[in-house]
Amino acid sequence: MKIVIDAMGSDMAPAVEVAGAIQAVEEFGYDLVLVGDEALVKAALAKHKYHSDKIAVFHAPERIEMHEPAAISVRKKRRSSMVLGIDLLKRREADGFISAGNTGAVVCAATLSLRLLPGIERPGIASPLPTLSGQAIIMDVGANIDPKPIHLLQYGIMADAYCKYIFRQSNPKVGLLNVGEEDTKGTGFIKEAHALLSESGLNFIGNIEGGAIYSGDVDIILCDGFVGNVILKVSESVASTLMQLLKKGIKSSIIATLGAAMAAKAFKELKIKTDYSEYGGAPLLGIDGNCIICHGSSNPKAIKNAVKVAGEFIRQDVNKHIVEKLGATNEIIKSHNVTKSHVKAFTGDVV
Amino acid sequence: MKIVIDAMGSDMAPAVEVAGAIQAVEEFGYDLVLVGDEALVKAALAKHKYHSDKIAVFHAPERIEMHEPAAISVRKKRRSSMVLGIDLLKRREADGFISAGNTGAVVCAATLSLRLLPGIERPGIASPLPTLSGQAIIMDVGANIDPKPIHLLQYGIMADAYCKYIFRQSNPKVGLLNVGEEDTKGTGFIKEAHALLSESGLNFIGNIEGGAIYSGDVDIILCDGFVGNVILKVSESVASTLMQLLKKGIKSSIIATLGAAMAAKAFKELKIKTDYSEYGGAPLLGIDGNCIICHGSSNPKAIKNAVKVAGEFIRQDVNKHIVEKLGATNEIIKSHNVTKSHVKAFTGDVV
Repeated sequence: MKIVIDAMGSDMAPAVEVAGAIQAVEEFGYDLVLVGDEALVKAALAKHKYHSDKIAVFHAPERIEMHEPAAISVRKKRRSSMVLGIDLLKRREADGFISAGNTGAVVCAATLSLRLLPGIERPGIASPLPTLSGQAIIMDVGANIDPKPIHLLQYGIMADAYCKYIFRQSNPKVGLLNVGEEDTKGTGFIKEAHALLSESGLNFIGNIEGGAIYSGDVDIILCDGFVGNVILKVSESVASTLMQLLKKGIKSSIIATLGAAMAAKAFKELKIKTDYSEYGGAPLLGIDGNCIICHGSSNPKAIKNAVKVAGEFIRQDVNKHIVEKLGATNEIIKSHNVTKSHVKAFTGDVV
Repeated sequence: MKIVIDAMGSDMAPAVEVAGAIQAVEEFGYDLVLVGDEALVKAALAKHKYHSDKIAVFHAPERIEMHEPAAISVRKKRRSSMVLGIDLLKRREADGFISAGNTGAVVCAATLSLRLLPGIERPGIASPLPTLSGQAIIMDVGANIDPKPIHLLQYGIMADAYCKYIFRQSNPKVGLLNVGEEDTKGTGFIKEAHALLSESGLNFIGNIEGGAIYSGDVDIILCDGFVGNVILKVSESVASTLMQLLKKGIKSSIIATLGAAMAAKAFKELKIKTDYSEYGGAPLLGIDGNCIICHGSSNPKAIKNAVKVAGEFIRQDVNKHIVEKLGATNEIIKSHNVTKSHVKAFTGDVV
């Protein structure tokens, strides 16, 4: 199994990607390819001891920056680490791709180069979330900010396969994010998605509210990419704001400082539980390939865990299961008179 | 000044409303009217010492429950505490109305009975939020889950007046919630709202991401009611999940428990800073009247602070300032060819 890592993606590239790759080789033994500026990547590698037979470097003279417009940068920077890395999958020279770079550009490059699975109209990003009882996934978190109801049905099917084969959940509970639990609530978009999901054969528990996301009562939270993106960012922000306010309060008193030091283990455990790097990256589901998207501020552990996720994804052949399940839902799609003609072709218009 | 309180709104009605009303009379001296089941309200009042000349009881034999559909319940339950309470404003027998009941029903009853301010097409709920440096408001959080771009311009104008006259902010910074900061990002809806806000004369700082909401860098966050509703619920949920995880970790060790007890003051301060009851309720802006919406799980302090907000709202004549400012933006609305004909009349279709 060969997995490609975009070595120029993260905020601390390529140091983080190189360190993560070395850890991943030690732990999982996969063959890895680091795509990026050869001199920079080799200089970063030279700082470590590593299995040089398991890590190859593939030169890419260009880099897509975080704030470049997705579609344009992918079309213009044909020799970027991201585009060349995904090309290795297209040419079947590798099995999986990981990037902590510009999310929109990854979605765009992967969709345009690898194409979508048969029956899928839009890809979606399935992001893992910590919950009170374990973890859940939320989909989509930004690949598609203006989806149609049918896309949410497709997300549900893809996320279900992912949870079954990657998280070993036998019958994951699927919830549709809404402003209320009642079937009568929500926009026209939500009501139509609800109707489709009700007939999907998924373990659809109906509408859920924002307060249920972290409860552990639902395994898969479906929403449009705009809302999902906002949720991820707001959640991170609430958590860090709370901790900053608490630290500020603690620092203002010597006794409190001492007390907090005594409770340090609990704080550390909390940090681990809520640390995205524990969960690896978020798979971009729906493309005919295996792409894992990581946070721009990833650390080596996050990259290592993304390699683990990519490996499982390939080993479990998640895409095959998605395509099988999609076939079974064709009747629903037909009965709702939803056809591809309602959907504009993918143009790379993403977050 | 006379302020009406829906005594049957909250999860713990009428005890919470009665206790909050008594505190408010002591602190602010306003005349209050408690609308609800007379026997229940009087029984709750009998448990306290209070200024009986300042608190009147107005009998309402019906109650709109939390999960009743908004428009239907308002039309059917004409003798509910909510409908009769708002009628007192309509008949100019009172100046302000507070309810911790079914939010959708309050929006619906207030809009249908009091009507909208001239130039406003949809009301919106402006919810206060704690930030690292003080507080911000987010609008809308659920009055209008499928707004047009022009409604976000109107929200901006209303929230600006609210911040200026209630929070005494001289030039509040207005941000449009989006999936990225760049002007090119977002859905068609967001891009059009961005264009309108850019010409509004407001202190519009452009798009902001979910991570900026609690930073204190922006005073007014504009978004559609679906997204705003989800943000409020997710934020509450992240905060309570974090605290539960932390408590669980602390309780598992005696030393950590002792440590946390020593840091208790910091925890308590944090709770106060992030406690919605400190902020009173959220005004329903855009109606030709003064309605404050409270959380269903309000405590007496939240009701008391909502009375304070209602009093300020009336004293500062916020609605007059909104109407004045709206007049000045008529040209923008015209130049964008946005007319009322694009918007269906309000039908009570709310959260």
